[in-house]
Amino acid sequence: MSQPRWFQFLNKATSLPENKNKTVYQIATIDSHNKPHVRSHIHRAFLIPNSFPAVPILLTTTDIRTPKVTQMLSNTTVEVAWWLEGSQDQFRFSGRAAVISHPEHPFHVMRNIPQGSALAKLSESGEIGGEHGKLDWEKKRREVFDTMSAHMRASWCRPPPGTVLSSYDDAKTWAATVPKIGEAETEEDKANQAEALQNFALVLIEPLQVDWVQLGVIPNRRTVFRRKEAEGNGDEWVETIEVP
Amino acid sequence: MSQPRWFQFLNKATSLPENKNKTVYQIATIDSHNKPHVRSHIHRAFLIPNSFPAVPILLTTTDIRTPKVTQMLSNTTVEVAWWLEGSQDQFRFSGRAAVISHPEHPFHVMRNIPQGSALAKLSESGEIGGEHGKLDWEKKRREVFDTMSAHMRASWCRPPPGTVLSSYDDAKTWAATVPKIGEAETEEDKANQAEALQNFALVLIEPLQVDWVQLGVIPNRRTVFRRKEAEGNGDEWVETIEVP
Repeated sequence: MSQPRWFQFLNKATSLPENKNKTVYQIATIDSHNKPHVRSHIHRAFLIPNSFPAVPILLTTTDIRTPKVTQMLSNTTVEVAWWLEGSQDQFRFSGRAAVISHPEHPFHVMRNIPQGSALAKLSESGEIGGEHGKLDWEKKRREVFDTMSAHMRASWCRPPPGTVLSSYDDAKTWAATVPKIGEAETEEDKANQAEALQNFALVLIEPLQVDWVQLGVIPNRRTVFRRKEAEGNGDEWVETIEVP
Repeated sequence: MSQPRWFQFLNKATSLPENKNKTVYQIATIDSHNKPHVRSHIHRAFLIPNSFPAVPILLTTTDIRTPKVTQMLSNTTVEVAWWLEGSQDQFRFSGRAAVISHPEHPFHVMRNIPQGSALAKLSESGEIGGEHGKLDWEKKRREVFDTMSAHMRASWCRPPPGTVLSSYDDAKTWAATVPKIGEAETEEDKANQAEALQNFALVLIEPLQVDWVQLGVIPNRRTVFRRKEAEGNGDEWVETIEVP
């Protein structure tokens, strides 16, 4: 079983020079009042389960204190629109989200990883190229934390997102940078890092459908890949050509 | 009563050279199975009601046959994320959508324009800079149709979006261009134009909240504008500075 065709097409599109640094996509969620929400996220990586390479999983990050986390935990169905402006390609992922928080955060038990899902397979058998055996989510979370910029890491030790401020200047008292794990030297850096690690969370999105529209090609093309359950580890993608 | 501050900030951001041609945003909707959807749209214009300049309305276009139209008609609450990559600004609009179809389309009576809304004010008193008196939606729809490229106009006389094709080559039999209204000369052009005009629709989004995040400024800034009902035509925007 190999990687799905949509993943090959996406990798080809994102590696085009005209799509350089096009790592921002929009994630749509639903809140408890049945209202849609959408915001930009930076794509960090695909995680590919060792035993389930048919389903690459999108990885992005967030602050556990944002409303979208509660939304994803109460309604795990999400959609992602990834617009690659350079080549005029849109990849839309419909799927299921899971949030990996600090192990002591109350949300940690609510990861929403259903048995048999690609997310569960990832937990059970790690990533391709990684170690075999159970994936250590906390290790993974800390690894991703360290790949972020010092400025980005500092964003997770701000006051809770959405807190009302009296002026923009209030932000000048916040930590501007937070060092990597193991590299905090001052007491202040250590405290900020501990706070940032409390709030930093991974967002994983397991795709169930991928809708690829090519507006850079004339006539325009659209190809839809729908995931089909199969016995064992053999999930398949059924591919149809559709009117854009 | 003048135009809202968020509109001034948005205009300033979109007119920066580094944001040139950043006219694509993502619109999130909810379907009847309570699933979120999101896709890229091209922003076409703001419509500003003559008698209600406090509420500029986003204008974009669509094919009346797409699932998002049904979604917007059954649940008018939508959210838009407009990421301006050049300056690293995000404008998020939470609001109410209305769809303006061909006057003989069954959806025409379902425009969902509530009394007292900015959309209703726009219908009643036209746009700034336009004629006074009731806005002629069909005239407006045809005007916008004519501002589209010939290639774009042809996209509305394709088979219904989502129709399964046997190959990409099927698309080669479709009209590649459709002329402006009044400029169709052949019978084929006339038929294609009539079909495209049947399917072409305006999407209007009336904002109720605008959430502006400036990631290009250090420390990052966030300003949220919430619309507050007021007597007469005096809706106001309450502005708060918040933690991003």
